[in-house]
Amino acid sequence: MEEIIYVVGHKNPDTDSICSAIAYANLKNLQGQKNVKPARAGELNLETKYVLDQFKFPVPELITDATNKKLIIVDHNEVGQAIANIDKADILEVWEHHRIGDLQTPKPIFFHCEPVGSTATLIAELYFNQNMELSREMAGILLASILSDTVIFKSPTCAEKDKQIAAKLQPLAGIDMQSFGIEMFKAKANLAAKSASEILNTDFKEFNFAGNKVGIAQIEVMETSEVKKKKAEILKEMEKTRVQRGLVQVILMVTDIMKEASELWFVGDKKEVFEKAFGKKVVDNAIYIEKCMSRKKQVVPPLETTFKAD
Amino acid sequence: MEEIIYVVGHKNPDTDSICSAIAYANLKNLQGQKNVKPARAGELNLETKYVLDQFKFPVPELITDATNKKLIIVDHNEVGQAIANIDKADILEVWEHHRIGDLQTPKPIFFHCEPVGSTATLIAELYFNQNMELSREMAGILLASILSDTVIFKSPTCAEKDKQIAAKLQPLAGIDMQSFGIEMFKAKANLAAKSASEILNTDFKEFNFAGNKVGIAQIEVMETSEVKKKKAEILKEMEKTRVQRGLVQVILMVTDIMKEASELWFVGDKKEVFEKAFGKKVVDNAIYIEKCMSRKKQVVPPLETTFKAD
Repeated sequence: MEEIIYVVGHKNPDTDSICSAIAYANLKNLQGQKNVKPARAGELNLETKYVLDQFKFPVPELITDATNKKLIIVDHNEVGQAIANIDKADILEVWEHHRIGDLQTPKPIFFHCEPVGSTATLIAELYFNQNMELSREMAGILLASILSDTVIFKSPTCAEKDKQIAAKLQPLAGIDMQSFGIEMFKAKANLAAKSASEILNTDFKEFNFAGNKVGIAQIEVMETSEVKKKKAEILKEMEKTRVQRGLVQVILMVTDIMKEASELWFVGDKKEVFEKAFGKKVVDNAIYIEKCMSRKKQVVPPLETTFKAD
Repeated sequence: MEEIIYVVGHKNPDTDSICSAIAYANLKNLQGQKNVKPARAGELNLETKYVLDQFKFPVPELITDATNKKLIIVDHNEVGQAIANIDKADILEVWEHHRIGDLQTPKPIFFHCEPVGSTATLIAELYFNQNMELSREMAGILLASILSDTVIFKSPTCAEKDKQIAAKLQPLAGIDMQSFGIEMFKAKANLAAKSASEILNTDFKEFNFAGNKVGIAQIEVMETSEVKKKKAEILKEMEKTRVQRGLVQVILMVTDIMKEASELWFVGDKKEVFEKAFGKKVVDNAIYIEKCMSRKKQVVPPLETTFKAD
């Protein structure tokens, strides 16, 4: 029997990580590689559950250890974001749209990264370029991924290509992008029902900045009053996570989709690096940044640059 | 005036690094980006001089410091192989065919790597896919790069795509691949005229294996008697380089193109790691490996795997 090749995204998977894995595995199947299967690196968030539910996809198989597995990696290239023992996997391909991180491979592989808003944009482009069949459901989850990662095209990470690909997917998916997007974010942001730990871990990623391990989480909300009620509890959870994982800092981006701005909640050491990176003083464990919606474009680069110079 | 964007390959440049930079800068110019220029990261070797001479290209501008420069990187993605202060450059794109190394970027960029024999194959493919004009000279240096990196298609790194692209380039370049390839390697291997230091530095690359810095050089020869005459002198030079650059090991691949085999000359610490990686005992500072021609496919992976497990 042929060995299975898993397509897998990052830990604390988001909609793009899950749906890009499903769509890319399907593309490989259509190309004749029947042994390629989608996988997930953790529990689905409420948004992704909503999306899979809408388009009737089963939840992909959970994998948590990469040892001796053949993997195609989507939507990440940082060791801290990958499943355990990623250095013991046989990584065949990487499809990415983030900064070039610390993932290394012993041999040359296919690695493709573009500065676009979502991995799904690149996967959908492959379907179009290769004239591959795109079912309503497959177009639906690809479009949902783009809407999710670009915050319905509002994020500064959104590229012209994201909009073009979304416009080609919409008639195939048969959904209204604006109203579907809002429903998706509503499903995700259902904060009243969530514990502090669930809120922090909805979308938590680990980074290595010049040897300093930093956790940066993000939640996107329609308005911030609900999450602020739980601030003390969440800060405690952030500090607990920081100590447990040996991180220098833990940051939570509380992104207000409507105001297109973020509060950055902060716990940890080297506060001066954090303050210098954003040019603001921390008050009540937080700073406020106008027009800030993107972790990878607006939070990671100034932190990485400032840690490097530290 | 618009800021210059340099296309640059690795230090100790080889024909692929130089010619891919020239051809990719020219492609950008043809696409309308007139501020893109080729550059080189060091002295040209005799083979590359021969190639540029045959097709009447000027030697690209030398750049040695990346600070505040806008760069497109070709043919490498290891910090140790890049020009100084690469972490202070604004890297816009990477075109690659080696293992995924330790180069990182603060923000998402265009990064494309494929497991093919030469970067020039990927650049030439762009010309063909975009129906861009390929002059006889441009086709010539692209073809020369493929012949150089694949050792006239004999190297195990040679992919089907290298042969296909070379076959499309040949009629445009108007050269006979076999005889041009032999002339090229003859020009490069002119050992009698070279000092031990020149031989070692013809194609010297630095790698980071799980924190261990290792230098691996390669020379390709038609027969090995000439270089063996200088072995004692070269080993001394290897040890000198090792100490100066703080490397754990320095390895020189003496590759016999005709026999399609390599002697690996060795100096340094952790000899047991080196011996374990290749399953052979070092005798007279050397081991002999049949059917070994490729540093990146046959020398780097076993070393990286063994250092990781060490």
